Order: sequence, then C-alpha cells, then structure tokens
Amino acid sequence: MKVNGKNYRTVWMEQGSVFMIEQNLLPFEFKIFESKNYRQTCEAIKTMIVRGAGAIGVTAGYAMAQAFMESSPDNFEEYITCAKTEIEATRPTARNLFYAVERVYNAGKKSVAHAINEAEKLAQEDVDSSEKIGIYGNTLIPEFCRIETHCNAGWLAFTDYGTALSPVYAAANAGKKIFVYADETRPRSQGARLTAWELKNENVPHIIIPDNAGAYLMSQGKIDMVIVGADRIAANGDTANKIGTLEKAIAAHEYGIPFYVAAPTSTFDIHCSEGKNIPIEERNPDEVLFQNGPDKNGCIHQILVCSPGSSALNPAFDVTPAKYITKIITEKGIINPDSTEIKKLFT
Amino acid sequence: MKVNGKNYRTVWMEQGSVFMIEQNLLPFEFKIFESKNYRQTCEAIKTMIVRGAGAIGVTAGYAMAQAFMESSPDNFEEYITCAKTEIEATRPTARNLFYAVERVYNAGKKSVAHAINEAEKLAQEDVDSSEKIGIYGNTLIPEFCRIETHCNAGWLAFTDYGTALSPVYAAANAGKKIFVYADETRPRSQGARLTAWELKNENVPHIIIPDNAGAYLMSQGKIDMVIVGADRIAANGDTANKIGTLEKAIAAHEYGIPFYVAAPTSTFDIHCSEGKNIPIEERNPDEVLFQNGPDKNGCIHQILVCSPGSSALNPAFDVTPAKYITKIITEKGIINPDSTEIKKLFT
Repeated sequence: MKVNGKNYRTVWMEQGSVFMIEQNLLPFEFKIFESKNYRQTCEAIKTMIVRGAGAIGVTAGYAMAQAFMESSPDNFEEYITCAKTEIEATRPTARNLFYAVERVYNAGKKSVAHAINEAEKLAQEDVDSSEKIGIYGNTLIPEFCRIETHCNAGWLAFTDYGTALSPVYAAANAGKKIFVYADETRPRSQGARLTAWELKNENVPHIIIPDNAGAYLMSQGKIDMVIVGADRIAANGDTANKIGTLEKAIAAHEYGIPFYVAAPTSTFDIHCSEGKNIPIEERNPDEVLFQNGPDKNGCIHQILVCSPGSSALNPAFDVTPAKYITKIITEKGIINPDSTEIKKLFT
Repeated sequence: MKVNGKNYRTVWMEQGSVFMIEQNLLPFEFKIFESKNYRQTCEAIKTMIVRGAGAIGVTAGYAMAQAFMESSPDNFEEYITCAKTEIEATRPTARNLFYAVERVYNAGKKSVAHAINEAEKLAQEDVDSSEKIGIYGNTLIPEFCRIETHCNAGWLAFTDYGTALSPVYAAANAGKKIFVYADETRPRSQGARLTAWELKNENVPHIIIPDNAGAYLMSQGKIDMVIVGADRIAANGDTANKIGTLEKAIAAHEYGIPFYVAAPTSTFDIHCSEGKNIPIEERNPDEVLFQNGPDKNGCIHQILVCSPGSSALNPAFDVTPAKYITKIITEKGIINPDSTEIKKLFT
C-alpha cells in the first residue's frame, strides 16, 4: 500500500537484512528498521517493531532464513535448532509465526537457498491471500455500510492489504460509500494509531472511538457489521484475537449485528481443537500504565496515565467462541466457523 | 474519606465559596479549588474539576445557593432564573444535578438562608445515603470476592463514601478479603486515575485493567460480580452510566455474573419512563485524542495518542437496559430493577 505516494510492504528482505516499517513510531514518524541478523529480528518481533499476525509470521520466516544464512557447517544443527526455539519464543499466540518458521525450517534442511526462497514465498502468499480476502469480503459489504473494526488487521498487520481492512479497501476502491468506526484498542492503541493512519492514507472515511463506545453505538443502530482479524483460529472456529474482541463479539451477537473474522488459512491451527487450548500472551503492565506520543511541539514524551503505585493487568488477546462469529473470510472463500468447513480448507 | 491522614469531603461550602478537590489534577496532584461565585462553580462542573453523579448534584446545589447569595432585591427574579438555567446546562445526563437544583431553588424562594440550608442538607443526605448503600451492598459481597468496577463511583464521585465503592469499603472494613479489578475507563480514565487512587489510599487490593479485558476475565472465571454507579435511572430501571457500562453488563449477563448498580434515590428519574429518553452528553473529541500525565521527572505533558488528522467520537454515557441489571443497591435497600419496586422507593 502507499505511504506518501510510494508503495511499501510492511516487511521485506534484501541481502540478508530484514527491513520493516517501525510500527512503534507510527503514526508520528515513518521510519524503516533494518535487522541484520535473526536475533535482532526476534527482538523486533518481541518489541513489536513489527506486529500483526501475518506480519509476525512473515518476519519470523525471514528470521529463520537469516539463521540459515548465518549458520556454518561446524555449528549448523545446534545453531538452527537454537534459532528456531528463540524465534518461536518471541510471541506465543499468533499461529502464523509457527506456521512460517516450520516451513522455512523444513525448506532449509535442503539448502540455505531453499530457506530464503521459502521465506519469500511465504511473504508473497501473505500478500496474495490478503488480496483475495478483500475480494471475498467485499461481497459482504453493502453500499453505505458502517463497519466497526478492532485493533489493526490492516496492511501493517500483514505484508500488504491486510485481512479485516482488506474488504474495506476493496469496497472503497469499488466506489462504495462506507464508513469505519476504528476502536482505539487500548492498551497499545493500534486502532487509534495504525488503523486510523491506514484509513487516512487510503482516504476511507472513519472516526476513532473509545473501546467503551462499541456496544453503545450498536444499541443506537449505528453499526452494520463488525470485521476483525485473528491471531489463531482453532479447529472448531474459536478465534484468538486482540484483547477486547470478545466484548465486541458478545455485544454484536446481542444486537444481531454480523460479526466477521477475516484471516488466511495460515492463521488456522487445526491441531488445536478449541479456543481454551490457545496460549494467551500476557504483556508488560507498563503498556497499560504509560502512554507515549508527541506534545504540540512534536516532542515525544512517555507519560504515566494511571494512579502512581497501582499495577495493571495486560493480557494481549482473548478468545471469541465460534458461536459469536457469523462467518470467517479466508483466501479460499467465506466459511461458517465450524469444524466441518474448517477441515475442508485443508483438504 | 482520608487523604494523607486527613478527612475530606469531595465538595463543601464555606463563607459563600464552594471548595472542591481538583479532580482533573488527581492522582498526580492533590489540590483544593475554590469557587467564589455560581458562574465559577458552573465552569468547575463543566470542566470536570468536580465529577460523578452525586458530587455534581451537591455542587450544583451549592451553585444554586451561591446564586441566591449573589442576587439582590433589584435583580432577584431574573438573576435566579438565569442562574438555574445556566447550572442545569452544565451537564445534561446526571439526574442528581436537576434534583439538587430544584430543591435549593424552591427553598431559596423563602429566603437565602433557606437555600444555603437546603444545599447543606443535600450534601449531608448524599453522605448518609452513600454510607447506607455501603451497608446494604456489603451484604451481597462474599468473602474472597473479586469485583469489577467501571469508571469511578467512589467517594470522589459523591460527597463521601461513594456508591459502587461504598460496599467495597464496607466489606474491606469488615475484614473481608476482597479484590477489585478497576476498569481503566477511557477516554478520561477515571478508573485508572481515581478509583485506583481511592483504593490505594484505603489499602484495598486492586489492579487496573484495560476496558478491553473485562469479558476476557469473565470468560476465565475471574470476576465474581460487577458493581457500577449510575448517572440516571429511569422509572423502568434502565440505567445511564459512564460509557462502556453497557458492554460490561452484556458480558456479565452472558457469563451469568451478577451485575449491580449502586445509586441513591436522588439518581432515579421517575418521570423518565425508559432509558431511551435519557439525554446522552457528547463531549469534546480531544478527550479521546489527547492524554495528559507526568513524565518520569514529574513534568506534566499533554500528548497526542491517536493518528494525526483523524477525529474521534466521545459519547460520555450509555444506557444499560434493566434486563441486564441483577439488583439496584439504594440507601433504602436492595431492589429489583423494575417499575414496581422503583415506584415503592418514592411512596
């Protein structure tokens, strides 16, 4: 997608380095981060320089490829095993990460070139599946649709296009008059910072809402559908996604509003029978206690936004049971969130 | 309640001035604001130096008394009518404001002394009813109870004790081992700033959670009950309270968790037949777009926390239908949220 008129992917590899948009600086500064080795790339995933299920997966694939490039015949087995473990330990919830690492790891057993090739293939698949999700998802969006979305499952969360926002972009490009309510998505505010930034860059009419306002707007008949992304989908359709997704799903269910999950098949974990088996990452309380951003002079500050001396809980994801999900939009088509249809995706 | 070992009320009147704890500075600075006339007091309500249904009511009563003190025989009728209109225009949702202004206005028709006396009586009634809500509410709280609360309906939101937090304080004082999950309550973060500050001052074990985490914790069996305050309760039990209350109520209902509203009878509007007739205040988008707080050196900054150039929606309240409310805790006892029991409160 375009930034200041130039096309970018969220993450890419060039001559052994992994380059990525520094998402911790967005939307206040646009900067490219270069990671020269797999350990730096792991750190970038952990510190969320890159975030979002798809982008994490592709970056992890690149990290695995970097590890193969860095290894030597002397230390090959040990280096690669250690790297795989380290990469997989960066973020526990997103399925895409384990999927990508596994594929590059297996390819790398043949040769380093195979590993690099597989990592690039994963990135291209991520782009293609995101684009297809947009085409399928667009068929669900009527003219004048008012869409609520949570967190950022836009192109910044994947290599390009995104998942939840891909249908939005496709609808807007098709000339439909749509409107997006972007949940702020505390504590990291990916909605207010990244989704709003994406939508503004793409000229999609939108407004930021506090996470608290979702059910209120639904009760007022102002939301026509909710579309969110996913970090991991279990075999029965239960879906792990950014903390707060569950609240929106329950409220949408209560008000009879369609609730769509958009995700590529790489997000499905068919070996995970149900949502309660998905590990939920708990992050540093400081993400809740502090906020950062520019003052009116553009000077960035980190400020305390909670009462001094109190702590905070920071679960990064929650699991939405399949019963609250209307449909899942994948690159292979739109399916019901049940084990039969999910199984068919993989046959 | 105590601040640094000294007993305070949230708001009080002395020699024609209304004094109040400057809540916009909390929890980072504790300062008393003095308002010398009714117009300054109106401004203090509007800018939320004082906030919370009960405290707004008592402050509005004091403002009305100030207007009587300021009036002269020449301009009496005009001055008082104009002041009443101005005071009632400060905040549209909290029922307590209209209740208090009406009572002081009627008393002031007899004499200025009557007006002052009535305003003081309102403040004392607010204290007494909050204390009684604590006593009744405490009977609902079992040992080891884990309570979620939204926004701040503690003593800072009333003249003393509070409503939602009054049972919490009563339970803690009775030696029960309880734990409070304080919702951050974006955009103004009254939970993270004021509720956490109160609980810390009173040594009640607690943790701040992002608003997004409520349903997740409920799904994990970690919340035993939700207690919130109210800004206005309609004749059928529908309850207006801080934005986001509705989401918690729907989620609690879904998980079979008791959802209690704590409010004095002055919060009930028996002339308002149902929730949809309650006016919802919409506040400045800047409250969503910007946050303020101290950096690590204690220097206060206002920072942008959203993508530049995007706007925000800022509804201050939502309405929770009576069907999601388990019980209402009042100073006259615990009632069901239905028109029969509500009517009985006023006979």
